[in-house]
Amino acid sequence: MSGLDPADLTAKLVRCASVTPANDGALEVLEEVLTAAGFDCTRVDRGGICNLFARWGSKGNTKSFGFNGHTDVVPIGDEADWSMPPFGAEVKDGVMYGRGTTDMKSGVAAFVAAAVDFVKDTPPDGSIVLAITGDEEGDALDGTTALLDYMAEAGERMDVCLVGEPTCPEQMGDMIKIGRRGSMNAHFKVTGTQGHAAYPHRANNPLPAMMRLMDGLASHELDQGSDHFDPSTLAVVTVDTGNKATNVIPAQCRGAVNIRFNDHHSGASLSEWLRGEADKIAEAFGVQVDVDIKISGESFITPPGALSDLVSSAVEAETGVKPELSTTGGTSDARFVKAHCPVVEFGLVGQSMHQVDEHVRVEHIHQLKSIYARVLRDYFT
Amino acid sequence: MSGLDPADLTAKLVRCASVTPANDGALEVLEEVLTAAGFDCTRVDRGGICNLFARWGSKGNTKSFGFNGHTDVVPIGDEADWSMPPFGAEVKDGVMYGRGTTDMKSGVAAFVAAAVDFVKDTPPDGSIVLAITGDEEGDALDGTTALLDYMAEAGERMDVCLVGEPTCPEQMGDMIKIGRRGSMNAHFKVTGTQGHAAYPHRANNPLPAMMRLMDGLASHELDQGSDHFDPSTLAVVTVDTGNKATNVIPAQCRGAVNIRFNDHHSGASLSEWLRGEADKIAEAFGVQVDVDIKISGESFITPPGALSDLVSSAVEAETGVKPELSTTGGTSDARFVKAHCPVVEFGLVGQSMHQVDEHVRVEHIHQLKSIYARVLRDYFT
Repeated sequence: MSGLDPADLTAKLVRCASVTPANDGALEVLEEVLTAAGFDCTRVDRGGICNLFARWGSKGNTKSFGFNGHTDVVPIGDEADWSMPPFGAEVKDGVMYGRGTTDMKSGVAAFVAAAVDFVKDTPPDGSIVLAITGDEEGDALDGTTALLDYMAEAGERMDVCLVGEPTCPEQMGDMIKIGRRGSMNAHFKVTGTQGHAAYPHRANNPLPAMMRLMDGLASHELDQGSDHFDPSTLAVVTVDTGNKATNVIPAQCRGAVNIRFNDHHSGASLSEWLRGEADKIAEAFGVQVDVDIKISGESFITPPGALSDLVSSAVEAETGVKPELSTTGGTSDARFVKAHCPVVEFGLVGQSMHQVDEHVRVEHIHQLKSIYARVLRDYFT
Repeated sequence: MSGLDPADLTAKLVRCASVTPANDGALEVLEEVLTAAGFDCTRVDRGGICNLFARWGSKGNTKSFGFNGHTDVVPIGDEADWSMPPFGAEVKDGVMYGRGTTDMKSGVAAFVAAAVDFVKDTPPDGSIVLAITGDEEGDALDGTTALLDYMAEAGERMDVCLVGEPTCPEQMGDMIKIGRRGSMNAHFKVTGTQGHAAYPHRANNPLPAMMRLMDGLASHELDQGSDHFDPSTLAVVTVDTGNKATNVIPAQCRGAVNIRFNDHHSGASLSEWLRGEADKIAEAFGVQVDVDIKISGESFITPPGALSDLVSSAVEAETGVKPELSTTGGTSDARFVKAHCPVVEFGLVGQSMHQVDEHVRVEHIHQLKSIYARVLRDYFT
């Protein structure tokens, strides 16, 4: 392995205690390396969050490859539970320990090292953009969104983007993420009229209405899946009344559902459906049904094509593993990038992320750099 | 009004703080009056409860009229909430205040006074039996049941029985109770398998099963009523999960229903139906459904006939009000007496029973004595 050592760079980043929203010098580590390699660096700090935009090549270039990642990390929990220093980046038996070693300081270090070597060894006819945020693990209001806002304003662009999040469930190379299902929660409150259980005709029990509503929602087939997504799912996650008295008909009952939805739906279309079902029940049972909906994220997809082929073949060449193109799992900043350009995600095996004694095999950091380097080579040639 | 003053007797009883299981001299007050009038009195104390059995006339008499009532009262709650002493029996503007003035020391005093005067003025060709308990408001395990056990053992009997509980909802004389619906509670616990809301196929959510089960139970028509009963009712009184996390499918959910049932059903027949419905749901959804049933009381009835006619005509003669024959309302000791002989209930307006500042119009105590006296006269002539 020649050029910039991505494991050394990872270690330097891990030693910055950049628990969201803190930066603790992490972006400065990257800025120094990138500036020395000829990248134009711009700090895009917003709302107390530090973000770094870096570009090699001129902004007018038509061929522009982007990387996105974050240097912030989740809290360490109780330090006493760690067997290695959480911000030490200590290496034992070829494994580096510390918060962010997997998620995702090693991913950032790998794409920074790949980009720095690439522009030095084989300067491309195009540009490379790095959008690195300090707010992915938090509210993400002033992170990648702030970088994209800056890019729009400054006329900066990426043609495609690779997010360096850990994506592999079992072994290095086994999964590329090309999208995500959307997620939303709907909270229902059914209000009737309290009364004595012996005289139900004088009360208006909200429970049968809630039962019918939830049974209907749970029984409804949202879809049978789409080209790149599993079927959407709806889970009734709780129904609660809190009535201790068996001789009393309660006035109110609450329930909640969680929906994970594919590209057959949107938060708006599902909200309309849920409110319609609630209205039907309200009318049929003569009760009041209040609905409170929180859309956590819309579904998004970069359909299999040039970008996923590019990343997939680089992964297979370096690891011997043919990655699955998947839309499973939790949220990531790819949901913001998607509005700007095609985006896929590929990175390390994520098993120890967010856990005590988070760790990464040092050889995997090098392998990841090689994959990102091959992606760049293949993209620009 | 001549003879024994039922209001004085009520006041003496109210001044005994006979909150279940305490007696505080209440039965001794009655025993003294009854013994003096020629009644054979036997204390039938059991399990720490005081009960009084009294008979005028010989036990072999074929014509035997019974009264049943209780001298125990419910707790007073916070005495500071009372505007009159709860055990004072103070009279203000023709109204006597105190715990038990309505439920039902006045009722006991009225039938004792009526019986004492009746046997003195017009000794009947028959016997009068008074079964008075100190355990009606509590568990009722050692109250009227103990008296009936004693009667069976001692060869004592009543041909018919009038329970002196307050029965009138609005005005003196408006309701006689000839039976009661049965009551039972069923508690359901549905157990599935916990999991992540994003992957419902890896979990087994108990909530849809509970929704379907409860919707089915609530939608089922138990019956359309019977000759003397309203339709049976089933109320879903609570469904609870207690899951705070919208991304988690819970392992368990609990629910409860209360059933008030008429003579088309029994606790056993309804239990069989409930367990059958639970089994069907368990099989259909692949969940475990546990059912825990508590039968509070079976339905019972003394069909309209000689006894209700007797009481009804006495009530109408004394009050000018034609009483409704009803099977509504909560439980009473009539459910035990029913196994011994035909039984109906008639007493005061019950509006203030169990409340702070429980009270009775003094003239209503006298009127109640007159009604009971007329019942005795009409029965024995």
